[in-house]
Amino acid sequence: MTGPTSNPADELAAEVAALAARVRVLEDEREILRVLTRYGFAVDVGDADACAALYTDDTVIDLGPGSEFAGTAGARTLVEDDRHQAIVGRCAHTLGPFVVDAAVDGDRATATGYVRVYVSDSDQRNPRLWRIGYTTFELVRSGPTWRIAHRRSRSLGADDGAALLRVGL
Amino acid sequence: MTGPTSNPADELAAEVAALAARVRVLEDEREILRVLTRYGFAVDVGDADACAALYTDDTVIDLGPGSEFAGTAGARTLVEDDRHQAIVGRCAHTLGPFVVDAAVDGDRATATGYVRVYVSDSDQRNPRLWRIGYTTFELVRSGPTWRIAHRRSRSLGADDGAALLRVGL
Amino acid sequence: MTGPTSNPADELAAEVAALAARVRVLEDEREILRVLTRYGFAVDVGDADACAALYTDDTVIDLGPGSEFAGTAGARTLVEDDRHQAIVGRCAHTLGPFVVDAAVDGDRATATGYVRVYVSDSDQRNPRLWRIGYTTFELVRSGPTWRIAHRRSRSLGADDGAALLRVGL
Repeated sequence: MTGPTSNPADELAAEVAALAARVRVLEDEREILRVLTRYGFAVDVGDADACAALYTDDTVIDLGPGSEFAGTAGARTLVEDDRHQAIVGRCAHTLGPFVVDAAVDGDRATATGYVRVYVSDSDQRNPRLWRIGYTTFELVRSGPTWRIAHRRSRSLGADDGAALLRVGL
Repeated sequence: MTGPTSNPADELAAEVAALAARVRVLEDEREILRVLTRYGFAVDVGDADACAALYTDDTVIDLGPGSEFAGTAGARTLVEDDRHQAIVGRCAHTLGPFVVDAAVDGDRATATGYVRVYVSDSDQRNPRLWRIGYTTFELVRSGPTWRIAHRRSRSLGADDGAALLRVGL
Repeated sequence: MTGPTSNPADELAAEVAALAARVRVLEDEREILRVLTRYGFAVDVGDADACAALYTDDTVIDLGPGSEFAGTAGARTLVEDDRHQAIVGRCAHTLGPFVVDAAVDGDRATATGYVRVYVSDSDQRNPRLWRIGYTTFELVRSGPTWRIAHRRSRSLGADDGAALLRVGL
């Protein structure tokens, strides 16, 4: 492992640098999972600004054929939609579990997993599973956090759903 | 980055200290999530002692207007309650996902997310979602682990539910 | 903390080694959770090879009295089973949350938690919870990843279900 020019101080410095890189991988995964969890919070409370801030300006949101949205305006549309506003405060978008894989350059990552949407009646009764799907997120590093650059979701039973899970398999 | 009095050994020592602090943040979050997951285990198996041990002595458990419990005695009451004992061994309290935020002093943290309760009939049939809510936990460091100092949960549809999710948004 | 023979360089090297061990614990837990999440992906897409690769050659899969499977052949059987093939692409096996505990030797670990299975009709309608259980996984280190050596699952309401959760309590 050590060449003729190595010395203990240099070796220790290299060890610390390698350890710092490993810690960064764990921190990146934590931050990515925070972004995906906060996406749920943003739509559950109906906050279009908070939701849009989680996406890149040129994001693509692909919820199936005929249900594609682009950019932060698209992200906002999904929250401001009448059908969504009707369930604000009585819905729960819970995402996960995920397999997160970072790209070689360290500034892009993919998260593959599941999304569930629950709703209750407005009198707090009758909690139920409303939708469940397979999902893949592509994220890019953005300063201290990450933003969603591409999101694809498919309900269980969709023809092209299994392909999403295969991204993380 | 380096001033006139710095030397490589001091710099490396400072780097290691900073890295140790980052690792501690990750370890704290792991331990907090373990406590919240083990809360589910404790109530599912109906172990009032194990449940109470997860709370601080002066904890406040706020499950909505008229449903507030205080201290480890209160935590115990929730487990020993007849309605809860009736579902022991056939219920699942699954918590998460959470956004965990540490306070500046490093000894307090907030976990914001979701709680779901499932039950099955005693013959193992008819598994179903029984309750789902938004939840916020305040935790304090306690030796090698963390304890719950304040817990608030609201069912989907409650007037003050969205405010809980905003803590983590 | 420092004996008569210690010097700053040796102390720093020891500190880095201890930190590396702490990081490895976090990395191991991450990898174990990836394996358990990818188990869900493998069975949801109906990939018997990918599923079998997650288990040790002599694995034991104990799903209850009269429902025990052994080895990678057993793991494969569960995926290739007609009843399972009937729901491929319209089911979701979501595992967690888990409490992960490593054995003292660092090469074995236990993950205790929950497993849920959802299905939808093949036209993507009627998403529903199909099964929910308590589960315990024993895993062993295998090169850069971990494999499942023993898996026990019980539906809510089973006589011996609570014993599984107690492993992680």
